[in-house]
Amino acid sequence: MHFSSDNAGPVPQQVLDALARANDGHVPGYGEDALSHRVRDRLRELFEAPEAAVELVATGTAANSLALASLVQPFDTVFCAPVAHIHEDECNAPEFYTGGAKLTLVPGGDRMTPAALEAAVAAEGTRGVHGAQRGAVSITQITERGNLYDLDDLHALTAVARAAKLPVHLDGARFANACVALGCTPAEMTWKAGVDVAVFGGTKNGLMGVEAVIFFDPARHWEFQLRRKRGGHLFSKFRYLAAQMDAYLSDDLWRDLASRANARCAELVAGLGKHAQVLNDARGNIVFATLPRAVHHRLRAEGASYYVWQGDPDAGDDTGDLVVRLVCGWSLTEEDVARFTAIVRAG
Amino acid sequence: MHFSSDNAGPVPQQVLDALARANDGHVPGYGEDALSHRVRDRLRELFEAPEAAVELVATGTAANSLALASLVQPFDTVFCAPVAHIHEDECNAPEFYTGGAKLTLVPGGDRMTPAALEAAVAAEGTRGVHGAQRGAVSITQITERGNLYDLDDLHALTAVARAAKLPVHLDGARFANACVALGCTPAEMTWKAGVDVAVFGGTKNGLMGVEAVIFFDPARHWEFQLRRKRGGHLFSKFRYLAAQMDAYLSDDLWRDLASRANARCAELVAGLGKHAQVLNDARGNIVFATLPRAVHHRLRAEGASYYVWQGDPDAGDDTGDLVVRLVCGWSLTEEDVARFTAIVRAG
Amino acid sequence: MHFSSDNAGPVPQQVLDALARANDGHVPGYGEDALSHRVRDRLRELFEAPEAAVELVATGTAANSLALASLVQPFDTVFCAPVAHIHEDECNAPEFYTGGAKLTLVPGGDRMTPAALEAAVAAEGTRGVHGAQRGAVSITQITERGNLYDLDDLHALTAVARAAKLPVHLDGARFANACVALGCTPAEMTWKAGVDVAVFGGTKNGLMGVEAVIFFDPARHWEFQLRRKRGGHLFSKFRYLAAQMDAYLSDDLWRDLASRANARCAELVAGLGKHAQVLNDARGNIVFATLPRAVHHRLRAEGASYYVWQGDPDAGDDTGDLVVRLVCGWSLTEEDVARFTAIVRAG
Amino acid sequence: MHFSSDNAGPVPQQVLDALARANDGHVPGYGEDALSHRVRDRLRELFEAPEAAVELVATGTAANSLALASLVQPFDTVFCAPVAHIHEDECNAPEFYTGGAKLTLVPGGDRMTPAALEAAVAAEGTRGVHGAQRGAVSITQITERGNLYDLDDLHALTAVARAAKLPVHLDGARFANACVALGCTPAEMTWKAGVDVAVFGGTKNGLMGVEAVIFFDPARHWEFQLRRKRGGHLFSKFRYLAAQMDAYLSDDLWRDLASRANARCAELVAGLGKHAQVLNDARGNIVFATLPRAVHHRLRAEGASYYVWQGDPDAGDDTGDLVVRLVCGWSLTEEDVARFTAIVRAG
Repeated sequence: MHFSSDNAGPVPQQVLDALARANDGHVPGYGEDALSHRVRDRLRELFEAPEAAVELVATGTAANSLALASLVQPFDTVFCAPVAHIHEDECNAPEFYTGGAKLTLVPGGDRMTPAALEAAVAAEGTRGVHGAQRGAVSITQITERGNLYDLDDLHALTAVARAAKLPVHLDGARFANACVALGCTPAEMTWKAGVDVAVFGGTKNGLMGVEAVIFFDPARHWEFQLRRKRGGHLFSKFRYLAAQMDAYLSDDLWRDLASRANARCAELVAGLGKHAQVLNDARGNIVFATLPRAVHHRLRAEGASYYVWQGDPDAGDDTGDLVVRLVCGWSLTEEDVARFTAIVRAG
Repeated sequence: MHFSSDNAGPVPQQVLDALARANDGHVPGYGEDALSHRVRDRLRELFEAPEAAVELVATGTAANSLALASLVQPFDTVFCAPVAHIHEDECNAPEFYTGGAKLTLVPGGDRMTPAALEAAVAAEGTRGVHGAQRGAVSITQITERGNLYDLDDLHALTAVARAAKLPVHLDGARFANACVALGCTPAEMTWKAGVDVAVFGGTKNGLMGVEAVIFFDPARHWEFQLRRKRGGHLFSKFRYLAAQMDAYLSDDLWRDLASRANARCAELVAGLGKHAQVLNDARGNIVFATLPRAVHHRLRAEGASYYVWQGDPDAGDDTGDLVVRLVCGWSLTEEDVARFTAIVRAG
Repeated sequence: MHFSSDNAGPVPQQVLDALARANDGHVPGYGEDALSHRVRDRLRELFEAPEAAVELVATGTAANSLALASLVQPFDTVFCAPVAHIHEDECNAPEFYTGGAKLTLVPGGDRMTPAALEAAVAAEGTRGVHGAQRGAVSITQITERGNLYDLDDLHALTAVARAAKLPVHLDGARFANACVALGCTPAEMTWKAGVDVAVFGGTKNGLMGVEAVIFFDPARHWEFQLRRKRGGHLFSKFRYLAAQMDAYLSDDLWRDLASRANARCAELVAGLGKHAQVLNDARGNIVFATLPRAVHHRLRAEGASYYVWQGDPDAGDDTGDLVVRLVCGWSLTEEDVARFTAIVRAG
Repeated sequence: MHFSSDNAGPVPQQVLDALARANDGHVPGYGEDALSHRVRDRLRELFEAPEAAVELVATGTAANSLALASLVQPFDTVFCAPVAHIHEDECNAPEFYTGGAKLTLVPGGDRMTPAALEAAVAAEGTRGVHGAQRGAVSITQITERGNLYDLDDLHALTAVARAAKLPVHLDGARFANACVALGCTPAEMTWKAGVDVAVFGGTKNGLMGVEAVIFFDPARHWEFQLRRKRGGHLFSKFRYLAAQMDAYLSDDLWRDLASRANARCAELVAGLGKHAQVLNDARGNIVFATLPRAVHHRLRAEGASYYVWQGDPDAGDDTGDLVVRLVCGWSLTEEDVARFTAIVRAG
């Protein structure tokens, strides 16, 4: 009953197999081997973007920060939600990679609204040389609070960006979960929706550590490669990144893994029923929910792991609810979910 | 007959096995799992440094740059050889991670001499607030040209650094090859020789991508961790780095792999005999040698791969020698070497 | 009737005289001349801080950014008000000088409350290596909206910082106006109130371009000097900065100039009476006030200059109020103010 | 007898007068006042470059670093002489402003030769994504060792840059001295000779602290302005920079001051005659010369000030020569020089 994070579970056997298969003979390093070339081609194909610049890195922080650094100048600001991973969870990596650009937090929740974005963009543009310049918009899909932007939402947000001539970055740490939830293609969720640079996350969805960065306009491709090397993110034995992504793309593994995670999430919501208040839309693989404190203690006693988001479970008496975060990884089983929800329902 | 690079060959089966073994169940991320803890303990034990701060990263560039960034300030300079990897092959990563520190190239070859280092350090200290401040000394062992510092050499260099109150960084991309060649312990080649921070390289010696950074004084440990995260180098699924290093440390695999590579190198030197002029000391796993142009063409025709360091093999007539670099990886076979040298000897 | 900014007016004759006096003979550069030494001593005396490190720079942005860069690390964040000059008006200079630190905007108005600061500090400290680290607190006195922190307010804010072990920076672009308004000494408004580093602004209060940065703990003095040089802010002909500050300190000129500006401000508030709604406490030299649109047009016609803060003066009909910012410089005359308020009162 | 530096002497009366004249009334800040506009126009006129982007800053380090930051990317390198001011005397400011670009020291003396530059440029371009990218060439005229590039030299150097598609930066801290020595126009020494960005120094030649940066291609003008503001180098009371430059441009003051300095230098060389060995071409305002130790002691006793470049004047016996640097400022008198050379000739 592990709901703590989608980086806590194992990788599927296909990934190990792909590493073993790739572990054969001598090949050029630094992404110039045949497998790496093929994987980039496959990604272009998947995204229906034959001209796109495609590169792999090993962490989401690197993917996001390098992408943003290719989009903005050090005197710019990036518009994002207040809970954006790039703001809260990357220890100033975007500031580091951009050379000191700022993040402007668009007021509101985890899902930026077009109106709030428009107002924030407008407010930032009034100070001439004195203020940060408007640089880019960053959207996380699915958000850090487990909510989904529908395609219409994305179109509306990117339209605001486009009107202000700002490029759009998509933090797709849970790209596959979003794609599956929306029933759309990667292209529909990215360039067809106005996204300029997308991170196609693999790590949270079952890889050991690989993310693809996709620039639909390849003009900054070489700059990105230089920034990646300068950041220490160009792997010499690149084939082991490529092999993981190759497995991910084969037989729609990426979609299959995300489908499993999302299905568990749906079962979880259904199973919680009225015994817990689900606080987000939970169409991806994350549930934020309130749990009675007593239930929490029972779950813990039974070995369930998850993150208490709000409230101190050990505070005083056993009354009052907690807010918990439940993340469904690809390897979670129906039995795990059933056992968890049974405990909750037992009250 | 692959002599092009020690990042071109496969990883040993033990590494794949270790990944498979680690791929079990749910564990905490970001290096807080039991395996990661154990690996750090094992490294401290190997280096006979119970107080050392030990961390893993995935690339040598990250290891070196993060280590240097923890040692120097942005207004400092790092003394290194003109051919240092940190200067020539990291696309300004040290400058990036240090926030703009400078590298001062100590005149001479790949092996800094104490006298040259002392002169360079002295020259840099005369400009008060106007000049770069003296920050650290960086030594590569074995050097980028395949030469070895004997322990006495290291002691002499670090004594110069110590006299100027400068910390010493050891770029140990080929640490194991050096250790085997010197027949010394990791401790003897690092803190016992005056090194403050060492990179214990795994990637070139058989891992997919893992380097350990070892601070013998743990005072900057937390800062290093923050810088690593800020650089996007903190892996969420850390166990897959730890597993590789665990395999590397088990049954002295690191030493075994380097011994093989060095043995091939010795066979290579012996086999070349008087048919090629070996230009470096070649006690590690790298040979720089002159080859007649005709021999080069024959080797290529037979499928040998290596890097032509000087001279244009395709220039005009077939006379004149080339300088080639021959790197022996752990997986190179005696037969490979024998075949290669036989071709050379055939003239 | 110039109320647009305190950087728009002339400098007092004493400053020109001081420049002329300093323009004599050959002296060492870079702040090593006798006058520069004397000025630093005088500042230490003024601040009753014999151990303080004191340095001059030419702009407020440099003063603030260099001070902050000496206080925080690149992976830190600085707590400040949402309208802080360091956030809104310095084009990412703090991010630049700190190497990419973040600014955390403490919710609320221009005057941070201890409670809001405490909550912001607490919220930022929960993410371990993933989040920005808590670095420093920055307070602007008087604020960018013309409000004053009383000494008790300062004590309360710095107590919050102290409890979290955070150093406190005081942006004193209008330090003198605040000091005069509070009727306190520079020491009372800085180190006695818990401030670690203060900017003693001269430019807005009558100098051509000089600000003093005062570190009450001199431990980072040398680092500051290196960062200043590295930022291109170490003037070779330093005496011309020192001369201005020398004039500023002579015969309490700094206090005299601020007293004039504040007196004009008080006259302005009194003169506006009920004909305009003053929106800030206006105890310094700045008034934010609502003005009827018709009055605004009359003022403009009569040659008054000031900044329209909210509302479009040229929009449609002549009804509805505007918010204007009226800044009183030292050179503003009683007649200027009287004329201005007479127009307002005429309605 | 002050030969220590051209930043040690006073400014001409015209500069003080201009400051006094500018000190009148209220004007817009940040370079938007009429005087600032006029000065920029005058500079465009002087340089015969009606389209050029022209901006003022207060220090040479700022001028050079900001110019370079507008020309190169953080992953680039700037080619310059080993004794370039940007390398030796700016405490890593170029690295800071460029975000971590490298400086490649072209082997040789203070005057780069086209052949050495060409070789350095060629050598830097062989490592693909691994090496620093070629970014720009920086030339100091007159050099830090007091030597002059003739116009042909400049043409030859910039031709090498042009062939490699590299922009050329001219560090003109002593621009006027060079221009006077060559008897050429500013245009001939800059854009007509292939220079892309020139620093037209005023500080060393008599201003309190003003340098003009001139981009002959204005494409990066806005970026430069943002970088200047971000560096804290945009003066609010800009008129006091502009006034100095205005005086400098009036009645060819800049040329007049440099002519005086160069004339003193010529007298100095003539006066030294065979009693000292002049080591540089000394056509500008700087002499490097050997002086007998005894002569040095006599000069010092008589009150002469200058910098001992090589040798320890206080070492042991009174034999052996010293190398000294003698800088002629605009305010040095014929009598100063005559007295100095008389002492030398007295032996």
